[in-house]
Amino acid sequence: MDQETTRCTTRAWRWFKAIPEKFVSKIMDAATEGKKLGVEDPRRIIHSLKVGLAISLVSLFYYFDPLYEGFGVSAMWAVMTVVVVFEFSVGATLGRGINRGIATLLAGSLGVGAHRLASFPGEKIEPILLGLSVFLVAAAVTFIRFYPKLKARYDYGLVIFILTFCLISVSGYRDDEVLEMAYKRLSTILIGGAAALIVCVLICPIWAGEDLHNRVAGNIENLGTFLEGFGCVYFQTLDDKLQDQKASLDGYKSVLNSKSTEESLANFAKWEPRHGRFRYRHPWDQYLKIGMLVRECAYRVDALNGHLNSEMKTPPEVRAKIQELCTKMSSESSLALKELSLAIKTMSSSSIADPHIVNAKTAAKKLKSLLKTGLWEDTNFLDIIPAAAVSSLLIEIVSCTVKIADSVHELASKAKFNNDVLKQKEKGKVLRVPSIEGSHNIAINSE
Amino acid sequence: MDQETTRCTTRAWRWFKAIPEKFVSKIMDAATEGKKLGVEDPRRIIHSLKVGLAISLVSLFYYFDPLYEGFGVSAMWAVMTVVVVFEFSVGATLGRGINRGIATLLAGSLGVGAHRLASFPGEKIEPILLGLSVFLVAAAVTFIRFYPKLKARYDYGLVIFILTFCLISVSGYRDDEVLEMAYKRLSTILIGGAAALIVCVLICPIWAGEDLHNRVAGNIENLGTFLEGFGCVYFQTLDDKLQDQKASLDGYKSVLNSKSTEESLANFAKWEPRHGRFRYRHPWDQYLKIGMLVRECAYRVDALNGHLNSEMKTPPEVRAKIQELCTKMSSESSLALKELSLAIKTMSSSSIADPHIVNAKTAAKKLKSLLKTGLWEDTNFLDIIPAAAVSSLLIEIVSCTVKIADSVHELASKAKFNNDVLKQKEKGKVLRVPSIEGSHNIAINSE
Repeated sequence: MDQETTRCTTRAWRWFKAIPEKFVSKIMDAATEGKKLGVEDPRRIIHSLKVGLAISLVSLFYYFDPLYEGFGVSAMWAVMTVVVVFEFSVGATLGRGINRGIATLLAGSLGVGAHRLASFPGEKIEPILLGLSVFLVAAAVTFIRFYPKLKARYDYGLVIFILTFCLISVSGYRDDEVLEMAYKRLSTILIGGAAALIVCVLICPIWAGEDLHNRVAGNIENLGTFLEGFGCVYFQTLDDKLQDQKASLDGYKSVLNSKSTEESLANFAKWEPRHGRFRYRHPWDQYLKIGMLVRECAYRVDALNGHLNSEMKTPPEVRAKIQELCTKMSSESSLALKELSLAIKTMSSSSIADPHIVNAKTAAKKLKSLLKTGLWEDTNFLDIIPAAAVSSLLIEIVSCTVKIADSVHELASKAKFNNDVLKQKEKGKVLRVPSIEGSHNIAINSE
Repeated sequence: MDQETTRCTTRAWRWFKAIPEKFVSKIMDAATEGKKLGVEDPRRIIHSLKVGLAISLVSLFYYFDPLYEGFGVSAMWAVMTVVVVFEFSVGATLGRGINRGIATLLAGSLGVGAHRLASFPGEKIEPILLGLSVFLVAAAVTFIRFYPKLKARYDYGLVIFILTFCLISVSGYRDDEVLEMAYKRLSTILIGGAAALIVCVLICPIWAGEDLHNRVAGNIENLGTFLEGFGCVYFQTLDDKLQDQKASLDGYKSVLNSKSTEESLANFAKWEPRHGRFRYRHPWDQYLKIGMLVRECAYRVDALNGHLNSEMKTPPEVRAKIQELCTKMSSESSLALKELSLAIKTMSSSSIADPHIVNAKTAAKKLKSLLKTGLWEDTNFLDIIPAAAVSSLLIEIVSCTVKIADSVHELASKAKFNNDVLKQKEKGKVLRVPSIEGSHNIAINSE
């Protein structure tokens, strides 16, 4: 019995002793993850420090008497505004700030108006009228928030509209200095918003537009990287297909679900003023169009990725020819995509990608004529399926690449990228390839 | 000259007269869109009315003297809370409400503590210490918001934490009744949150979990609808492929970009208590897994959709056989997917889908053996490509369907769906097909 007690005590003691260990290990895990997050994108650390700075700046209102005297308790709206308005990118901050400012102005005016109107018929009916107006405005504006176009850009403004209208018109019933309250709320919000914006723009600004630009270029590059490695990995025998080689091609997977991120970045970017290489009305929507085409291409690439686990079983002499042409198609598409990505990154309207596209198309045509000749008559038909499926997917990918090239050219002309033909000549890359502009619309199908 | 003036005046008058017309037409457009939004999902209208009601209820605080006396100006926090916490679904509202409540409690305590500590060293150092603590807390919590797991569920709570800490510790420098302020803020927020929740749950509640459940089932059905029509449309001659027939198959496209919606619905659903047929800890993550597999299948379906614009050109006698098997594969997969969708919708762990999967697999095998026989020896090899590509995609889709069936069965066992074999017998659908459970893991590849 005594032994039993001792054992229990020891176990309990061990469990108890383990608590700090577990706690420490949790903390260590969190720290490791935090370090990873910081290394991955150091702008996160900068952003956090900026938020701290902006809030500290605004809280100065409370410490200096002359500033505090002017606004009193309303000064807290300034702090609140900084906290809720300060976002990661300049565009998001500007969008929220402008939404909050304008919504407060409009709803404040409307609230003061409602308060005045409701006070005419007499004190007994006033609360009923005010309650009714609050109900109607809240319900109507909540419904308006469902309009997709308004939701994308003005959702926050609509929430603040309801908020301010309710605060002003309702508290107006108590406080006859309703105008002063509206004015104080508006001005403190403007001060808070301005502080957030100034810190956001002046200290290491993070531009949503630049992010979108780089992300779209990066997505195109990811597809290029897959296609670059595909031919190599696919035509190895199954035993040689090392798992890590295949894994190194998985970069394109982030492209598949990029839609919502790209859309919100584009919405933020539309708020941003001229910065760096971007004008105020940079054609952000064109990036969404490119993004859509890139995703379409990524779906085909995903199907192609499924074939990496199988092997082409055609006889050696046929295999060699198909291998050559398929590798050519994928590597030329890859080169074209990488050049397009570079063209976006450097914002140059170069046509270096065009010869690669022409080469890819030529390879596709050669593959077709190879298949027309009765080269394979002794081949087992079942063996043709993977070859045909891969060829068909590659042909579709070439056609997607053409579409992407087209829309990148469209972006270049819309955004007036530099036409640095001279630079290319200096590099020794004189273009003698016939322009493929005219041929872009010809669908390359597997027919 | 006079004529010129008259003409100008007339033009200006016409333009001026057109303004109200334009305005009216804009209003009409907005009304039409609003009607469409309401008809599409009437819950939107109900939600708007509920928000109006909840805000009106809380604003009663201002109208009734006894309630107002207790809280004073702080009563506005209750109105604010309702506006910012009330979301479309119960889960989202609960999540925001709990986040806001707990964050206010924690940050309020910490703020009071910081205020006490800072007041020890003396009045001169107090603002410096407070400013420093505000900076540190704001920067640290802003960084913590980047942790993906915390961002998914506690992002709003972290923002409110910063907000409350700053308000309490900073305004505490002025107002020595800092404890009372913290208490008032917390209690008004609790009242507002409770009002929002009660209205949200009691009047026509909208459950995020149910939405996720129906959406995943609907996505599976969308794929089934495409595959049901595919065989029919594809094997028509090009002239007969009516554009509207093809367009009717486009329903699956919404599946491609469903990831972010599903993830946020799952996050909301995790907050929801037991409701209808769902327990508190319903296996929501399993829906995300199914959703991922459904999207993978949708990528193949998208590639298949690309083939609808071309035609299979094989000789009639070969074509007839391929057509039969391809149509069989797509229609059986379609039936299987539709049964799986129905099984999710009715929450029954039926295995009605299994025989269809077996049939689809059999068709795939037959297609392979058909290809093995030298049936096509006179065929132009180029004509084989589309047939092979479509077959290969269909084989992959069958394999995706198997995976989807597997994960739906997993969901059924995790969520304890009803095993209503009896019901099926009553319907006359006695299952004599060998269970395919064991065969699910066999990869069906195009090798």
